Amino acid sequence: MMVKQKGLLIVLSGPSGVGKGTVCSYLREKQDDIIYSVSATTRNPRSGETDAENYFFKTRQEFEQMIKEDQLLEWAEYVGNYYGTPRAFVEETLQQGKDVILEIEINGALQVKEKYGEGIFIFLMPPTLAELKNRIINRGTETAESILKRMNVAKNELQMMKHYDYLVMNDEVSKAVERIQSIIEAERLRKERILPYYEQWLKEEL
Amino acid sequence: MMVKQKGLLIVLSGPSGVGKGTVCSYLREKQDDIIYSVSATTRNPRSGETDAENYFFKTRQEFEQMIKEDQLLEWAEYVGNYYGTPRAFVEETLQQGKDVILEIEINGALQVKEKYGEGIFIFLMPPTLAELKNRIINRGTETAESILKRMNVAKNELQMMKHYDYLVMNDEVSKAVERIQSIIEAERLRKERILPYYEQWLKEEL
Repeated sequence: MMVKQKGLLIVLSGPSGVGKGTVCSYLREKQDDIIYSVSATTRNPRSGETDAENYFFKTRQEFEQMIKEDQLLEWAEYVGNYYGTPRAFVEETLQQGKDVILEIEINGALQVKEKYGEGIFIFLMPPTLAELKNRIINRGTETAESILKRMNVAKNELQMMKHYDYLVMNDEVSKAVERIQSIIEAERLRKERILPYYEQWLKEEL
Repeated sequence: MMVKQKGLLIVLSGPSGVGKGTVCSYLREKQDDIIYSVSATTRNPRSGETDAENYFFKTRQEFEQMIKEDQLLEWAEYVGNYYGTPRAFVEETLQQGKDVILEIEINGALQVKEKYGEGIFIFLMPPTLAELKNRIINRGTETAESILKRMNVAKNELQMMKHYDYLVMNDEVSKAVERIQSIIEAERLRKERILPYYEQWLKEEL
């Protein structure tokens, strides 16, 4: 059939400490038909990191130019470095009919939603706040004060769940990944998305 | 947690001969947490059929009273007998937080959509029209003329796909069932549905 579907933009987000990175890596293993967006950053490459693979490495001037020209779907400054999602890479991949996933912080996800509302916004939930606290503590190197601070940030972030399309409990990584896979499968079957394909099919069949 | 979700109403439909009944039986085996709606009919019980289990058996007068009192989500007359979906059974089950599935003809599905637009409307697609024709022929006891007539009905029915939420290819029964299970799983995780539950959770956790 001839009709080419635009890919899905899947945005995976959730509060600090909920396990976005782990879930995303596991999803990546299970589902190799989704393209993972490469971020841009002004931080220096670490040993072994390759430009355009791990990150698009940019100077501050280049990054600020990208902001000015609206070339980023979202961006933030974090401990003195810029991080962001280049719009061109995402849009070109979607145009090729491939699905793209972004694993980003809540603030960034809400920026993406403003620019690309047809994305699928998935919010990962911790099973309990106590468990979220455990996960933050287990990352280590945090003082009691910084843990308290991070918990307060996380509580505020949880209020943002209402802006998402799907709420997925991350009680177990494999279960969370299965839920996300169901969401992706279902979204691919939505009428709005697949109807042009079947209308073409029907025209050819009749 | 205390917030009780209303169940999902899942409507499985598609053109004549596409295999709705087979898909629905297989889904029923795989997913025992969904309640199958019991239809009302004026036809006589066959041996072994039990009232309120296979069908709600009604007199014509009773059935026509149900139509008049808007007690049916959908109904049709077929070779001299009425068939329909009692609204009370469906609504009470949904209120108990249980998901309900209806396996019905396209005409009936569109009637349900008018009365219960928040349902999830799934349209089963044949892989090709040739395959649909094969399936109609393989049911046997059809004349060439009646096959032609049924194919014309099916072609018209296919035009109705645009009124549904999801289009699911029935190329293989097990695959079609997996797709439907993904849709059900994803719909259960939709924010509109699950947010009151998590808002309550957050209130208790904070």
